[in-house]
Amino acid sequence: MGKNRLEAFSDGVIAIIITIMVLELKVPHEASLEALKPIVPVFFSYVLSFINIGIYWNNHHHMLHAMHRVNGSILWANLHLLFWLSLVPFTTAWMGENHFEAMPTAVYAFDLLMAAIAYYVLQGRIIKQEGPQSVLARAVGTDWKGKASPVGYLISIPLAFVSAPASQLIIVAVAVIHDFPIQPDLP
Amino acid sequence: MGKNRLEAFSDGVIAIIITIMVLELKVPHEASLEALKPIVPVFFSYVLSFINIGIYWNNHHHMLHAMHRVNGSILWANLHLLFWLSLVPFTTAWMGENHFEAMPTAVYAFDLLMAAIAYYVLQGRIIKQEGPQSVLARAVGTDWKGKASPVGYLISIPLAFVSAPASQLIIVAVAVIHDFPIQPDLP
Amino acid sequence: MGKNRLEAFSDGVIAIIITIMVLELKVPHEASLEALKPIVPVFFSYVLSFINIGIYWNNHHHMLHAMHRVNGSILWANLHLLFWLSLVPFTTAWMGENHFEAMPTAVYAFDLLMAAIAYYVLQGRIIKQEGPQSVLARAVGTDWKGKASPVGYLISIPLAFVSAPASQLIIVAVAVIHDFPIQPDLP
Amino acid sequence: MGKNRLEAFSDGVIAIIITIMVLELKVPHEASLEALKPIVPVFFSYVLSFINIGIYWNNHHHMLHAMHRVNGSILWANLHLLFWLSLVPFTTAWMGENHFEAMPTAVYAFDLLMAAIAYYVLQGRIIKQEGPQSVLARAVGTDWKGKASPVGYLISIPLAFVSAPASQLIIVAVAVIHDFPIQPDLP
Repeated sequence: MGKNRLEAFSDGVIAIIITIMVLELKVPHEASLEALKPIVPVFFSYVLSFINIGIYWNNHHHMLHAMHRVNGSILWANLHLLFWLSLVPFTTAWMGENHFEAMPTAVYAFDLLMAAIAYYVLQGRIIKQEGPQSVLARAVGTDWKGKASPVGYLISIPLAFVSAPASQLIIVAVAVIHDFPIQPDLP
Repeated sequence: MGKNRLEAFSDGVIAIIITIMVLELKVPHEASLEALKPIVPVFFSYVLSFINIGIYWNNHHHMLHAMHRVNGSILWANLHLLFWLSLVPFTTAWMGENHFEAMPTAVYAFDLLMAAIAYYVLQGRIIKQEGPQSVLARAVGTDWKGKASPVGYLISIPLAFVSAPASQLIIVAVAVIHDFPIQPDLP
Repeated sequence: MGKNRLEAFSDGVIAIIITIMVLELKVPHEASLEALKPIVPVFFSYVLSFINIGIYWNNHHHMLHAMHRVNGSILWANLHLLFWLSLVPFTTAWMGENHFEAMPTAVYAFDLLMAAIAYYVLQGRIIKQEGPQSVLARAVGTDWKGKASPVGYLISIPLAFVSAPASQLIIVAVAVIHDFPIQPDLP
Repeated sequence: MGKNRLEAFSDGVIAIIITIMVLELKVPHEASLEALKPIVPVFFSYVLSFINIGIYWNNHHHMLHAMHRVNGSILWANLHLLFWLSLVPFTTAWMGENHFEAMPTAVYAFDLLMAAIAYYVLQGRIIKQEGPQSVLARAVGTDWKGKASPVGYLISIPLAFVSAPASQLIIVAVAVIHDFPIQPDLP
């Protein structure tokens, strides 16, 4: 079916994304606890993105579990999602190194928004193939969280320029509620 | 059969290639939108290469799906393809950091040409084993796109020194038409 | 079941963690043996962490081998473990570049402690699902080593400020005895 | 059996090793062909190591194909092999950046020697489990190449200090003849 390779490739890319972010934690030259201070915000941005990428992996895992066949448009929709996720290490590091200022926060939220849209598009392609009576279609039909998260990111982008912390709070809140959008009784 | 491991290894290498390119997007030290300006060309070279590597992964996926057995020469032809693809992060970064100038564009096109030739050689090895009546052999027989793409890269190399943008246009055009060279009715 | 993808993703992340640590071995500009001298402590910290990550991979391999189904809480407990392991390249490099001084040694031990706790939590989640009569539950019941290792790390954290070498000795000792905590007769 | 995960993990590590070496090809700031000149030796060391790692992957692929079960000592012998292979990006870059001088060449040959020994040990562990009548045991029995390669590396280490090019010639020759040591009629 080819589904296995799509999963394997996605797992590979997501595994690399979630791991190379740690390379942005630049190793201090001194051995004191104070030397770790400058990387504290980078560390928090890492934790936030680790959770966000983890959520995507979990959801992707559940969604592809409910999928039975692959076609060309699903392959490309999946690559499109991986593209926006692949930018997360960059936007994370920019936000972390600049202490969660307005512009990097807005760009970070924008990246997550595009990833959420790409996920939504991928979901649509899979449902189109699986049919309206499929497990996935019914699970998504009652999934208000999946629809709420792009709205949350959309609000957090302009909000970053009013209050960066408020914007980040929404991003965190979306992560918390977004957790497992499709999980009817999929194992 | 060993086919699974060939797929898994190729997926791993391609996943890493497509992801480590993002490390070339150097994180700016300032939090302003202007600070992102210097990396705009690097970003566009990243997008172009993400699509090109994505096309190779898709095609590789379809081609190996139609393959039934592996032999030593296929293993090496596959490694040869991965070698030229592994240089893409380097040629991409060089082109991006030098604002798509003539020489880096020509070297980028050369790398893609060598990858296209390597893909062609790999295809030949697989067809030789699968036989002239195989699904793959028949799909490739009517595939003018697969033959057009090396020609496109061959033209874009000298053209880069006349007009770099014209050269890049051909590279993009090849990406657009090259998409899915072998896709008769493979799932 | 989804177990395969959990294994594949974990393998990917652990493979990347164990490999990117080598990027901290900065290539010297001179060709003499003396030029390698500054990276000797980094090399030893690399060897230590390679073994520790190797132990985790081996144990993870055995534990998931004995698992039959996956649920949401296992997915997250697994990601939690991968998070602490993903910090190992950073803590390793910090310890290596600062010649195994007190503070980096304590932070390194703290990271391993958190990973050991995360492993313990993951084990608990899996046993809860597999049931008290499962192979895993019985193997863990008689596993004093798995319980000894967090205690070892807990001691090595404050000990680092008294004697860093003594602290490192405990870390090494835990690695030696921790080797294969659950290995009743699992293949 | 767990064999699948051993293969998957090894594939992941080897895929990363073969790919991160390209990160040592530092992107020049100028767009001229001359700007590529300083990285020419690094490029050649990359090609050499790509081939060497490719040979190991191929051989590993064939050897594990002929293996039926995994035990603890095979897991560790495999990790031991991966350890020496994981140092190849470092020794490659050191040799390349120092224009194939004596000391880096000797260290490079030493790393390959240790990898060859580790491969030999792994092979022994697998044969011990598979039994003297197994396909693998018989294939290895007539394999003079597998025994010749450690000898070649052993010679090339001291030879590097007499003549670095002669030493490199032996390393290349070993790569050429070492190609596929065990390939009776394994697919």
